[in-house]
Amino acid sequence: MISISIQMGKKEVAVGIDIGGTNTAFGFVDRQGNILAGDTILTNLYDEIEVFIAALYEKILVTGQKAGTELLIKGYGIGAPMGNINKGTIEYAAGLPWKGILPVSDLFHRHTGLPVIVTNDANAAAVGEMMYGGARGMKDFVVITLGTGLGSGFVIDGKLVYGHDGFAGEIGHTAIRPGSSDRECGCGKKGCLETYVSATGLKRTLLKIMADSIQPSVLRKYSFEELDAKIIHDAARQGDPLAVKAFEHTGRMLGFKLADVVAHTNPEAVFLFGGLALAQDLIFEPARKHMEENLLSIYRGKVKLLPSELSTQNAAVLGASSLIWAELEHK
Amino acid sequence: MISISIQMGKKEVAVGIDIGGTNTAFGFVDRQGNILAGDTILTNLYDEIEVFIAALYEKILVTGQKAGTELLIKGYGIGAPMGNINKGTIEYAAGLPWKGILPVSDLFHRHTGLPVIVTNDANAAAVGEMMYGGARGMKDFVVITLGTGLGSGFVIDGKLVYGHDGFAGEIGHTAIRPGSSDRECGCGKKGCLETYVSATGLKRTLLKIMADSIQPSVLRKYSFEELDAKIIHDAARQGDPLAVKAFEHTGRMLGFKLADVVAHTNPEAVFLFGGLALAQDLIFEPARKHMEENLLSIYRGKVKLLPSELSTQNAAVLGASSLIWAELEHK
Repeated sequence: MISISIQMGKKEVAVGIDIGGTNTAFGFVDRQGNILAGDTILTNLYDEIEVFIAALYEKILVTGQKAGTELLIKGYGIGAPMGNINKGTIEYAAGLPWKGILPVSDLFHRHTGLPVIVTNDANAAAVGEMMYGGARGMKDFVVITLGTGLGSGFVIDGKLVYGHDGFAGEIGHTAIRPGSSDRECGCGKKGCLETYVSATGLKRTLLKIMADSIQPSVLRKYSFEELDAKIIHDAARQGDPLAVKAFEHTGRMLGFKLADVVAHTNPEAVFLFGGLALAQDLIFEPARKHMEENLLSIYRGKVKLLPSELSTQNAAVLGASSLIWAELEHK
Repeated sequence: MISISIQMGKKEVAVGIDIGGTNTAFGFVDRQGNILAGDTILTNLYDEIEVFIAALYEKILVTGQKAGTELLIKGYGIGAPMGNINKGTIEYAAGLPWKGILPVSDLFHRHTGLPVIVTNDANAAAVGEMMYGGARGMKDFVVITLGTGLGSGFVIDGKLVYGHDGFAGEIGHTAIRPGSSDRECGCGKKGCLETYVSATGLKRTLLKIMADSIQPSVLRKYSFEELDAKIIHDAARQGDPLAVKAFEHTGRMLGFKLADVVAHTNPEAVFLFGGLALAQDLIFEPARKHMEENLLSIYRGKVKLLPSELSTQNAAVLGASSLIWAELEHK
């Protein structure tokens, strides 16, 4: 096969973009997962999505020109809450400044003819794990992102599962015990997994335990707003009994759901990503125990429960960029 | 393209085999889903799996020779409880006369060099629905088989999901409310979906309702062993309040789980197959209601809940045969 590049000398990169409620980060990422340059803009500075996309695109261009190497951009991968990969939209994302259905891909295409792929953060993280992380060489796995909420991305037979409507992988909004929890979720339902298994869920569980218990705890001096996963983690490491119990309960709830996940698609591994996953054994041990206890015997002892190998800091940008590499590989 | 068949005049067929605890049925099925010939042998007549397979193969040959048309067999598709598609085995199937791991594919290959594919009944039903039934043209759907137990098969992007260990699609053994049900399951766990949502589950729920209620019911004269889904169905159609309640509760439990299924893989449709599905609105209405109530808003009103279009009588054989056609298409 004869093929002559007319762009010799340029470094091929995918732009990975992570749209968050406060900041939007982006980076120029090569096929090996190296971030060659990058920057952020403030998301909530822009009342109009059109203006935001134009400003973001401008900033990407300027940053690219300042990079040491000449870059050849192959496409734009975008991770965002409620990103819909089939339609290239963000739909009804509670945490963003703009309402309704946002045609992000179309708006990007006002500026570029290159591929633009939009999906949710967890799907992007799953593809990132496959391209650059611990899932290299795996064909069937699940990534669960544990941040303020809980996201999930499924890879089956080497491909991200989109679903018929582009919204596969939202196990954060499945119930652990349908109809039997009063814990309100931001989605409007009650008892969703993410009301238990997330940084916020951990705080809520801690408050519940604190209310029921009379044991002293260093955490009793913190308000709900002051508390975060790191404070509870530190307290648990010091042996604070309420903090330890809060992690145990969080891991137990996660383990219940992981048993379900395994029975659905029988993955080789489940990766945990994000702040809560950094608590290591505090979350992995109860999660593994209750997963195994709730598995059908044919699955027991076979499914790996692993920490993500993507660095927390850059994972969203890496994951978003990997959407482009994965797409180009499948063509 | 020039292609000369050296087998002209012969009709291409796949052999579909349904191994059950009592009977094993088989049929010669063409690409359009027509069964050209078929028969059954008694499963539990054979103490040794080797002897059973040899007898089954012999019976298939003899039946094929007696068929009106000359047949060209393209392969053998086998549906069986706990069938493992990756390994070609049946593993620890409680309902069959043979114990442990049965190398069904290898045993078949003592007699034939043609492709042999083994999977569980529900996976076979899912592929059958895609090849011959209501899922023609769909790429993302789920089939749930409701018989003595509950099986499930997932199709994603036009392909059956096998899973890393060959055991994907066992939602019958996920819990509805983990840790909060005492209902024992044949698998050794408690509170599994199939202890509620299956013909047996319906009977168990009816008994529970009968125990709690003082309402008269025509069903109070039946023993547990005498009861079956059809008797309860008939009573419900006559307005028997306990039978109606038993169906409502069964549908409600199914609806809870369907909401989970949707959030995992976002299918276009869920098909219900088997005895319980024949109860139509009695099962579909509560299932649909509770599914919708428990769905994240992005999914609401989008997922079709449909009866299987495969005839109950031949579905297992059709489904098993379709494994071969699907395999040949992907080559």
